[in-house]
Amino acid sequence: MTMEIMGNVEKVSIFVSGWLWLKGLLARALIKMEEIGRQTRKIAKDDPRRLIHSLKVGLALTLVSLFYYFQPLYNNFGVSAMWAVMTVVVVFEFSVGATLGKGLNRGLATFAAGALGLGAHHLASATGKTCEPILIGLFVFLQAVASTFIRFIPKVKARYDYGMLIFILTFSLVSISGLRTDEIVELAQKRLLTILIGASTCVVVSIFVCPVWAGEDLHKLVANNIEKLGNFMEGFGNECFKTFEDSENGRSSSLIGLSSVLDSKTSAETLANFARWEPGHGQFMYRHPWKQYLKIASLTRQCACRIEVLNGYLYSKTQAPQEIQGIISSMSSESGKALKELALAIATMTKPPSRNRHISNLKVASTNLNSLLKSDFWEKHANLLQVIPIATVASLLNDTVTNVENIAGAVDELSCLANFKSSGEEMRSNKVLKQVDVEDQNPHVCIKIDGAEHVKQEGQSSIQTGYQNLGV
Amino acid sequence: MTMEIMGNVEKVSIFVSGWLWLKGLLARALIKMEEIGRQTRKIAKDDPRRLIHSLKVGLALTLVSLFYYFQPLYNNFGVSAMWAVMTVVVVFEFSVGATLGKGLNRGLATFAAGALGLGAHHLASATGKTCEPILIGLFVFLQAVASTFIRFIPKVKARYDYGMLIFILTFSLVSISGLRTDEIVELAQKRLLTILIGASTCVVVSIFVCPVWAGEDLHKLVANNIEKLGNFMEGFGNECFKTFEDSENGRSSSLIGLSSVLDSKTSAETLANFARWEPGHGQFMYRHPWKQYLKIASLTRQCACRIEVLNGYLYSKTQAPQEIQGIISSMSSESGKALKELALAIATMTKPPSRNRHISNLKVASTNLNSLLKSDFWEKHANLLQVIPIATVASLLNDTVTNVENIAGAVDELSCLANFKSSGEEMRSNKVLKQVDVEDQNPHVCIKIDGAEHVKQEGQSSIQTGYQNLGV
Repeated sequence: MTMEIMGNVEKVSIFVSGWLWLKGLLARALIKMEEIGRQTRKIAKDDPRRLIHSLKVGLALTLVSLFYYFQPLYNNFGVSAMWAVMTVVVVFEFSVGATLGKGLNRGLATFAAGALGLGAHHLASATGKTCEPILIGLFVFLQAVASTFIRFIPKVKARYDYGMLIFILTFSLVSISGLRTDEIVELAQKRLLTILIGASTCVVVSIFVCPVWAGEDLHKLVANNIEKLGNFMEGFGNECFKTFEDSENGRSSSLIGLSSVLDSKTSAETLANFARWEPGHGQFMYRHPWKQYLKIASLTRQCACRIEVLNGYLYSKTQAPQEIQGIISSMSSESGKALKELALAIATMTKPPSRNRHISNLKVASTNLNSLLKSDFWEKHANLLQVIPIATVASLLNDTVTNVENIAGAVDELSCLANFKSSGEEMRSNKVLKQVDVEDQNPHVCIKIDGAEHVKQEGQSSIQTGYQNLGV
Repeated sequence: MTMEIMGNVEKVSIFVSGWLWLKGLLARALIKMEEIGRQTRKIAKDDPRRLIHSLKVGLALTLVSLFYYFQPLYNNFGVSAMWAVMTVVVVFEFSVGATLGKGLNRGLATFAAGALGLGAHHLASATGKTCEPILIGLFVFLQAVASTFIRFIPKVKARYDYGMLIFILTFSLVSISGLRTDEIVELAQKRLLTILIGASTCVVVSIFVCPVWAGEDLHKLVANNIEKLGNFMEGFGNECFKTFEDSENGRSSSLIGLSSVLDSKTSAETLANFARWEPGHGQFMYRHPWKQYLKIASLTRQCACRIEVLNGYLYSKTQAPQEIQGIISSMSSESGKALKELALAIATMTKPPSRNRHISNLKVASTNLNSLLKSDFWEKHANLLQVIPIATVASLLNDTVTNVENIAGAVDELSCLANFKSSGEEMRSNKVLKQVDVEDQNPHVCIKIDGAEHVKQEGQSSIQTGYQNLGV
C-alpha cells in the first residue's frame, strides 16, 4: 500500500517536473517567437518595400511555375522549365538595377558560353572518341582558369562578376553534356529560351510592380547624409559650451548618426553600380550623373571625419568668453543650415539657391572671429591652456567651413550635369546675371552663368583669405 | 582603256584604305591587348594567390567532370551529375572560410528544403488531382515570400543568405517537379548526393591546395592598418614644419594610404564573417576571437579619422618656436613607433611589450608640452593667430595619443583572449609581477597579471591628467 502510494507520488512528481519543463520550454519558445515577431515587424516598418519585395518574388516564382502546371507549355520545354524557376530565384534582386544587371549578365553569358561550348564540343568530337574527353577536359580547365582570373579585374568584378560565373557554369555544362547527349543543340536552345523567359519575368515584375530604383536610393542616401551632418552642426552650435549636466538628455538626438555617414562608402558604391543599369525613370534620365553623387558622398565623408573630431570637444567644460561663444555657435549653426539647404536642393532636385544666405553669414562670422582673435581681447587669458580648446574648435570649424564649400561646389556641378530645375528666385537672379554677361559681351557656359557658382567663388576666396589670416 | 585604269585605281585605293583601316584596327587591338596584359600581370603580381585560386577552380571543376567521363559513375548519377558541376562553380570562393560557409549553407539548405518539398508534395497529392497544383502553387508562393523576407534579417543576411537562396530554389524545384516526375524521392536523393560531392570537392581542394585563410587575411589587414597609421605618424613628425617646397617629393610616401584604412570597414567585416566558418589552422584556433579584431579595426579607423584631420596641417608654413617643434615632432614620431610596435605584436602574435617604451616617452613629451604651454614662454606671441595652428596640432596630437592608448588596450585584450606567446622580456617582467601579486596575497586574472596592462593603466591615467590639464 505504502509502496503504491510512493509509486504514485513518484509518478506525480515526474509528471509535475515534466510539465514544468515543458512549460518552461514553451515560455522560452514564446519569448523567442515574440522577439522574432518584434524584429520582423521592425524590419518591415523600417522599410515597407522589403515586404513588397518578398511578395514580388513570390509572384514571379508562381508565374514561371505555370510552365509545370499547364500541359502544352510543359510539352514544349520539358525538364528545361526548371531553368526558368532557377533564374527567377537567383536573378530577382531588391532593386530594378540589380535585377536588370543580373538578368542581362545571365542572359548574355549563357548565350556566349553556350555558343562557345557548342563550338568546343564540335571541335573535340572531330578528333575521335579517344581524344574527345581529354580535349573537352582541357577546354573546361583552361576556360575556368582564365574566367576565374578575369573576375579579379576590379572593373569586371564591379559589373560583370555574375556574368563571368554563369559563363564558367554554362560553358562547362554545355561542353561536358555534349559527351553524353546527342540533342545538345536543342538542349542549349531550350535552356537559353527558358532562362530568357525567367529573366524577363523578373525584370517585368521588378519594373512594373512597385519598382525600387537603386538610383533613387542613392539620391536619397546622399541627400540624407548631408542632412545628418547639417543637423549635427546645428546641434553643435547649441551644445558646444554646455556642460554634460546642462544638456538634459546627454547628447541630443541630432548628434547621433555620424558613424552611419562615415561608413556609407560601400553602400553608395553598390547603389551607383546598380543605378547604371537602370533605364530612365521619374526625374532621372538614363545617363544620370551617378558618378557625381559618389563625388559628393566622398566629400561628405571627409566632412563627417572633421565633424567627428569636433564632436570630441563637446561638453569640454571650457569657459570661453561670451563673444567667442556667440561666434562659434553662429558659425556652426550657419554651416548646419547651409548643409541642410544643400541637402534640400538635392532632395527636391532644384538648383541650390544662388548667393547662399548661410554661406554669406559664414563669411561674416569667420571674419568676426578672426578680428576678435587678432585683437588684444585675449591678452587677459595669460594661461594659454584655457585658450587652446577654443582655438582648436575655431580652427576645426574653419576646416569644416572649407568642407561645406567643397560640398556646395560639387552639388552645383551636379545641379548643372543633371539639369536640376531652377527655383523661382534662382531664375530671376540668373536673368540678371545673363543680362550682365550680355553687356560684358562675354558669353559663359552653364556653370559660369549659374548665380550660385558666382557666389561660391566669391565665398570661397574670402573664406580662404580669412583662413590664411588664421595662419592655418 | 581610261575607264579600266580609273577602275583599277579605284580598286587599289579601296584596297589601300581597307588595308589602312585593318592596320589601324590591328594596332589598336594590339595596344588594347598590351594594356590588358599589363593589367593582368599587375593583378597576378599584387596577390599571386589569385592565380593559384584560378588554377584551383580549374582543378576542382575537372575533378567533378570525371562523373561524365567514366561510364560507371555516369550510370549511377545520370543527368544529376550536372549538379556537382554547378555546385563547384558556385561554391568555390577565394578563401577557405567563404567556401566552407557556402558549401555548408548549400548542403544543409538543400537537405532541409528537399525534405520539406517532399512533404509538401505528399500533402498536396493526397488532396486529389484538381487541388494539387493549386496547393503546390500556394506552398511555393508562401515559402518564397517568407524566406525572402527572412533574408532581410541582418544576422541571417551576414551568414545564411546563400542558404536561404538555395532553400527557396530547392523547395520550389522539388515540390513543383513532383507534379511531373514520379521518381521524385530518387531524384531528390541523387541531387543531394551530387551536391554534397561537389561541395566536398570544393572544400577539400580549398583546404589542401595552397589554402587562403580569411582569418589570416583579417589578422594581416588589422596589423597592416595599424602599421600604416604608425608610418604616417612617424612621417608627420618629420614633415610637419617643413614647407611644401622643402619636402623633396611633395608628400612622402609614408603619408599615403590613410584613406584605405578609413575605408576598410566592409572588407574587415566580410573577412570576420568568413573566418568564423574556418577550422583551426596554423596559429589560429577554431574559436579565435575574431570579434576583437573588428574592435581593434574600428578603433584604428577612429584614429585614422583624427590623423586625416592632422594631415590638413602639414606644410602649414607655421613658424613655431624650436622647442615646441621639437616636442610635437617627438610626440608624433613616438606615437608612430608605439603604433608600429602594436602592429608588430599582432603580426608576430606575441604579447605587446610591457612597459611600452614609446608610450612612456609619449607621457614625458605630453608633460613637457603642457609645462611649456603653461609657461610665459608664449607671452611674446602677442598675436594669437600665430599660435592657433600649433595649439590645434598639439590638441589633435593629444587626441591621437588617447586613440593610441585605446588601440593598445584592445591589442592587450586580444593578446589575452588569443593566448599570444610572451616575448622573453615580457616573461621576465610577468614573473616579477606574479611574485608581487603572491606577496600581496591578491591573485589576479590574466588581464591583471599582464605587465603591459599595468603600464597601460599607469600610462593612460597620467596622459589623461595631462590632457585634462590642457583643458581639453
